[in-house]
Amino acid sequence: MRVEVLRLGHRGERDKRISTHVALTARALGADKIIFTVEDEHVEESVKKIVENWGGNFKFEVIKKWKEYIKNFKENNGIVVHLTMYGANVNEIMDEIKKEFEGKNILVIVGAEKVPKEAYELADYNVSIGNQPHSEVAALAIFLDRLFEGKTLYRKFENAKIRIIPSNDKKQVIIKKDK
Amino acid sequence: MRVEVLRLGHRGERDKRISTHVALTARALGADKIIFTVEDEHVEESVKKIVENWGGNFKFEVIKKWKEYIKNFKENNGIVVHLTMYGANVNEIMDEIKKEFEGKNILVIVGAEKVPKEAYELADYNVSIGNQPHSEVAALAIFLDRLFEGKTLYRKFENAKIRIIPSNDKKQVIIKKDK
Repeated sequence: MRVEVLRLGHRGERDKRISTHVALTARALGADKIIFTVEDEHVEESVKKIVENWGGNFKFEVIKKWKEYIKNFKENNGIVVHLTMYGANVNEIMDEIKKEFEGKNILVIVGAEKVPKEAYELADYNVSIGNQPHSEVAALAIFLDRLFEGKTLYRKFENAKIRIIPSNDKKQVIIKKDK
Repeated sequence: MRVEVLRLGHRGERDKRISTHVALTARALGADKIIFTVEDEHVEESVKKIVENWGGNFKFEVIKKWKEYIKNFKENNGIVVHLTMYGANVNEIMDEIKKEFEGKNILVIVGAEKVPKEAYELADYNVSIGNQPHSEVAALAIFLDRLFEGKTLYRKFENAKIRIIPSNDKKQVIIKKDK
């Protein structure tokens, strides 16, 4: 099934690198799409450049009406997981979510700033990746890694111009030249 | 055994939020110490404030001679794991590292910018958390989550002024007032 990531909020200059890391983490760990609620050319360009060079079909979208988007997603065979330090213990709730994922798509919400109450209410699951303050990038990474059990981590991306061959002791990069 | 995280490089304004996320992820996921090679008051203050409010004994250090630090760490019953997109597949190498961790401390290196060749050479393991470009915060988070198998994620921090009780449907925060 499909995974999308909704980044709620984005405070321009302050968040631009963190938001880029959120998007690239989503792509690298197996999500199909990142959705922002605020436009940021810098972030969009960074993500599109990565997709162009490293391949795959990762989508980038900016929406204004995020509540509608969530409701629509739920109506179309989707469940919504909001990652928050206040949420239920991921160690305890992950099995249930994985079971749902066998037949449903997942929308993962990660907030930039304080998340509006409606996000908590619209979510099917409010999940904490630990109850300590750390990072939405870390939370998203761990959630996706556990959801996919490491399986998406080394998949091939179609039409990649750059590809790395993993190695403990050397840098091995394959670069496909344009004809 | 003990885990320390060495953040190699830091480009001031550009990296200050990412470096803070690296440090807080290290703390929240079970590391005992973060080491920077560049001073940044903003990052230091953010981390110290979190420790003051959320408890525990997480250490913050700035060093100049990182190569010496690594060599010393290795001489004192430690192994060094460098997280890099060029490294060996984490899915394949993690069991070996976990076995080492039963008797040895681990220093995890995460770079900010291009990492000097010496870091690759000094590391016992160069490990990739996927070979796609994403985020050092994500890489560190997944590495620590897998190393500790989720066990450090909900441990109690001593002398915490703030504590959260996980919940799927409400925010539950316990705040200890100063006497």
